[in-house]
Amino acid sequence: MQNSVQSDLQKTVYDVIFGYDTKAGRTFDVVLICLIVISVTAVLLDSVESYHLRFGEFLFQLEWFFTIVFTIEYILRLYSTPNKIRYASSFYGLIDLFSILPTYIAFLFPSAQFLIVIRIMRVLRIFRILKLFRYIGEANLLYTALLQARRKIFVFLFSVLTLIIIFGALMFIIEGPEHGFNNIPRSIYWAIVTITTVGYGDISPQTPLGQLVAGLAMICGYAIIAVPTGIIGAELMNEYQNRSRKNLAEDRKCSSCKATGHDMDARFCKYCGNIIRQR
Amino acid sequence: MQNSVQSDLQKTVYDVIFGYDTKAGRTFDVVLICLIVISVTAVLLDSVESYHLRFGEFLFQLEWFFTIVFTIEYILRLYSTPNKIRYASSFYGLIDLFSILPTYIAFLFPSAQFLIVIRIMRVLRIFRILKLFRYIGEANLLYTALLQARRKIFVFLFSVLTLIIIFGALMFIIEGPEHGFNNIPRSIYWAIVTITTVGYGDISPQTPLGQLVAGLAMICGYAIIAVPTGIIGAELMNEYQNRSRKNLAEDRKCSSCKATGHDMDARFCKYCGNIIRQR
Amino acid sequence: MQNSVQSDLQKTVYDVIFGYDTKAGRTFDVVLICLIVISVTAVLLDSVESYHLRFGEFLFQLEWFFTIVFTIEYILRLYSTPNKIRYASSFYGLIDLFSILPTYIAFLFPSAQFLIVIRIMRVLRIFRILKLFRYIGEANLLYTALLQARRKIFVFLFSVLTLIIIFGALMFIIEGPEHGFNNIPRSIYWAIVTITTVGYGDISPQTPLGQLVAGLAMICGYAIIAVPTGIIGAELMNEYQNRSRKNLAEDRKCSSCKATGHDMDARFCKYCGNIIRQR
Amino acid sequence: MQNSVQSDLQKTVYDVIFGYDTKAGRTFDVVLICLIVISVTAVLLDSVESYHLRFGEFLFQLEWFFTIVFTIEYILRLYSTPNKIRYASSFYGLIDLFSILPTYIAFLFPSAQFLIVIRIMRVLRIFRILKLFRYIGEANLLYTALLQARRKIFVFLFSVLTLIIIFGALMFIIEGPEHGFNNIPRSIYWAIVTITTVGYGDISPQTPLGQLVAGLAMICGYAIIAVPTGIIGAELMNEYQNRSRKNLAEDRKCSSCKATGHDMDARFCKYCGNIIRQR
Repeated sequence: MQNSVQSDLQKTVYDVIFGYDTKAGRTFDVVLICLIVISVTAVLLDSVESYHLRFGEFLFQLEWFFTIVFTIEYILRLYSTPNKIRYASSFYGLIDLFSILPTYIAFLFPSAQFLIVIRIMRVLRIFRILKLFRYIGEANLLYTALLQARRKIFVFLFSVLTLIIIFGALMFIIEGPEHGFNNIPRSIYWAIVTITTVGYGDISPQTPLGQLVAGLAMICGYAIIAVPTGIIGAELMNEYQNRSRKNLAEDRKCSSCKATGHDMDARFCKYCGNIIRQR
Repeated sequence: MQNSVQSDLQKTVYDVIFGYDTKAGRTFDVVLICLIVISVTAVLLDSVESYHLRFGEFLFQLEWFFTIVFTIEYILRLYSTPNKIRYASSFYGLIDLFSILPTYIAFLFPSAQFLIVIRIMRVLRIFRILKLFRYIGEANLLYTALLQARRKIFVFLFSVLTLIIIFGALMFIIEGPEHGFNNIPRSIYWAIVTITTVGYGDISPQTPLGQLVAGLAMICGYAIIAVPTGIIGAELMNEYQNRSRKNLAEDRKCSSCKATGHDMDARFCKYCGNIIRQR
Repeated sequence: MQNSVQSDLQKTVYDVIFGYDTKAGRTFDVVLICLIVISVTAVLLDSVESYHLRFGEFLFQLEWFFTIVFTIEYILRLYSTPNKIRYASSFYGLIDLFSILPTYIAFLFPSAQFLIVIRIMRVLRIFRILKLFRYIGEANLLYTALLQARRKIFVFLFSVLTLIIIFGALMFIIEGPEHGFNNIPRSIYWAIVTITTVGYGDISPQTPLGQLVAGLAMICGYAIIAVPTGIIGAELMNEYQNRSRKNLAEDRKCSSCKATGHDMDARFCKYCGNIIRQR
Repeated sequence: MQNSVQSDLQKTVYDVIFGYDTKAGRTFDVVLICLIVISVTAVLLDSVESYHLRFGEFLFQLEWFFTIVFTIEYILRLYSTPNKIRYASSFYGLIDLFSILPTYIAFLFPSAQFLIVIRIMRVLRIFRILKLFRYIGEANLLYTALLQARRKIFVFLFSVLTLIIIFGALMFIIEGPEHGFNNIPRSIYWAIVTITTVGYGDISPQTPLGQLVAGLAMICGYAIIAVPTGIIGAELMNEYQNRSRKNLAEDRKCSSCKATGHDMDARFCKYCGNIIRQR
């Protein structure tokens, strides 16, 4: 994968930043994870007014410290990677960029009328938490299962959406603005709250007919949740079996043509027809 | 499927409207989906008072535009399909009809006292969104699994209903009208809200005994949700295996020992070692 | 199963009431289901004050009509069944008895001070709905799966209960009576409402620490629901496979010893060692 | 497992307290479970003010009685177990210790200002209920399945946490302090309440944009719950199959062709027709 025109320095930096094999690479990763967690915690605390009043100055300095550290990390990643454009446009490359941008933008537009934008920018630094995902290898099997199930999940989500719109429209007609169902978008919000079984209770049906329809919506939502669960369970199960079948199959090898992948009950090689010795 | 008495024009129109194979057919479908989404969005916006006051006139004209377009589409479908009665009485034929009717009915009966009924009709145009389902083939596997599980799901829903009625009646006795459980239907509404874990909080038990029974109802609801999920998961899994077993096994057969169940890449029978003829 | 000392009349009545094979038996069942549904609906309506005031007299007469009909049915069942004690002490025998008792008890104790008891008795007639379960045959597979999973589900429910008690006690200490957590039983009620994700909102944590612990309780409840679902799904799946293995196995039969139950890939009878002819 | 330097008395006590085989051991376990349940119930009742006023003195004495009984039990366990340090530092050893400590600490520090701390300690005695777990063997299969799925469940919980933090931060920007989203930690509390579908309704979005984002969060939470369920179901299923495959296959082997996988009732090898020796 690594380009041969990399200099020796680039190679060393690359091994530390991107690598997992050397002790330096692992230490770098642990330090980075700690920095990310601390920086996200700082954003959380800064939003609490009492902490902002007391430690605001310190948290502001901390923010700049983390921004500079992550900027240096970003530059080093860009410098050491053989294919700069591929890194910069990759998922993690973009996350790395977006986790440092907000602080600079808040610095460049300090005028009062942009205050809200600045606040948003500073809060958006919380997305740094996404940088942690780089360190989770186990996610692959889950990801593959979800990827294979994506069409079924899309059909499911679309059905739920249709149901939500129809129930929302029905409740708007039945209950009307006098019971909090002011318009169809708001009724649809109610339908989402109900069908997903969240149930805030900020809008709730008052008329007997409305309560009947709401009851139907709830039972629908309650029964429907079974579908994606079944899909993902079946998909994961399928993949487990494929994997174990592969494991089983690779254990048996034809002594004549060296082909693997034979079933447990095969007595003859399915490729060359020779006898397979039983283990 | 197509009747031979169709004229050439009918055939061409049929291929564009019902077909998926030609470029024209696919373009027609995409345009239709866009029109449906825009028309449903217009109904949603029209129900918001501020939008209705500002853009009411425009949305009214838009409504007529879409109604006329969908009417032409409906007539063309009727014209081009070989079996007119079967289309008109099919699920999508009825949806197509119901999605244009409300606007005409509102036009014919403009008297004030019918306004509320008309509003119901107008919102029913939202069923147009169901037309989108025609374009998703992936729904089939889900549909088959749900169809095979329908008896078990019915048993489950009936058990839940019984539980809901019994818990509703019990809470009516325990809590009574003074705590909001005015009558059994309302208590049943509470039981649905509780057992489906929606939990609005508009009616909630006040007495210790009522809270104990409510707690039991919640744990019941919490445990019961596992049943339909298990059913659908097992049903889907079953179908996956049937499909893959069918693919693997039935396609290939040893001409010598008649054994089936060979892998797709097998060239020799794994039981007797003879050559399998490639299909 | 039927005892030979049954008279001819008993046999005829038995076939009509308990049987499913004759036309008379099926008609009896359909009529009975209708009567049960109507009688339950009458109890529901009688509890609504406005209906009680208007149709109270009529509903009272209807109640006596249904009670007499179900009493006759109960006597006929007792009369025609060969083993009277087994029927009377069976699940359905008890349900049949309890669905007629409340009206008689309410008649025997009409004194004013027993008013509440009478109301309870009349409401309890709603349990008649349980009589419907006799007509659901599909419930067996579900019942077997739940039976086999009962020990695992018990462990699960016990774990959830422990979690609920611990979280309830913790929140009583953290939030205390001033925030609605008056005592540990009430805190446990809150914990049930939270962990089952019902969430009425009648009691909710106010302090940051309470909200943190509540958040942990929610995520626990959210993750734990996966366990019984997985159990039941796996149990159902297991039973499906057992059944289909049995189906597959019974298709193959040894021509020598007539034994069935051979695997799909068996070439020799596992009982007598003779060759099985491939289908 | 038992050390040979145990005296005869130690052995006898060990068999009664830790053993399940003798009648004395089983009786001891049942008595202990009853005592634990009664003692936990006493703590629950003592927290209800009306009971505390009426039975406070009696409950106080009961608390000391149980504390002394459990202390004697703890000492006997320590005395009889061959490896004292391993028991004292084991999970159940610590639970046993923590369930008696609070009462003693409340006795040693009776000053008023420590009352709240003591109350915490007293309630911790509720952990005694965890002792019940020792008696359930069925928990093992569940435990193994959860253990094997722990990495996937960790990935899942981490993803949910990330989602919760991002939705919390977004809603803090959108809704702001004026609608109850005072700071990010409080917004994160809202996000947990929403994504786990608890939905208290103590904080709920007021602006249309906030309701849109909240709707997205709900549908996310609704769809995500499918993932751990699928994981655990697949894991349990996997273990079922492994167990049954192991039972079926590894026990019996053909002495002629060395083929495994014969059914439990097979007397002849299904591949070569030779006799299988019964184990």
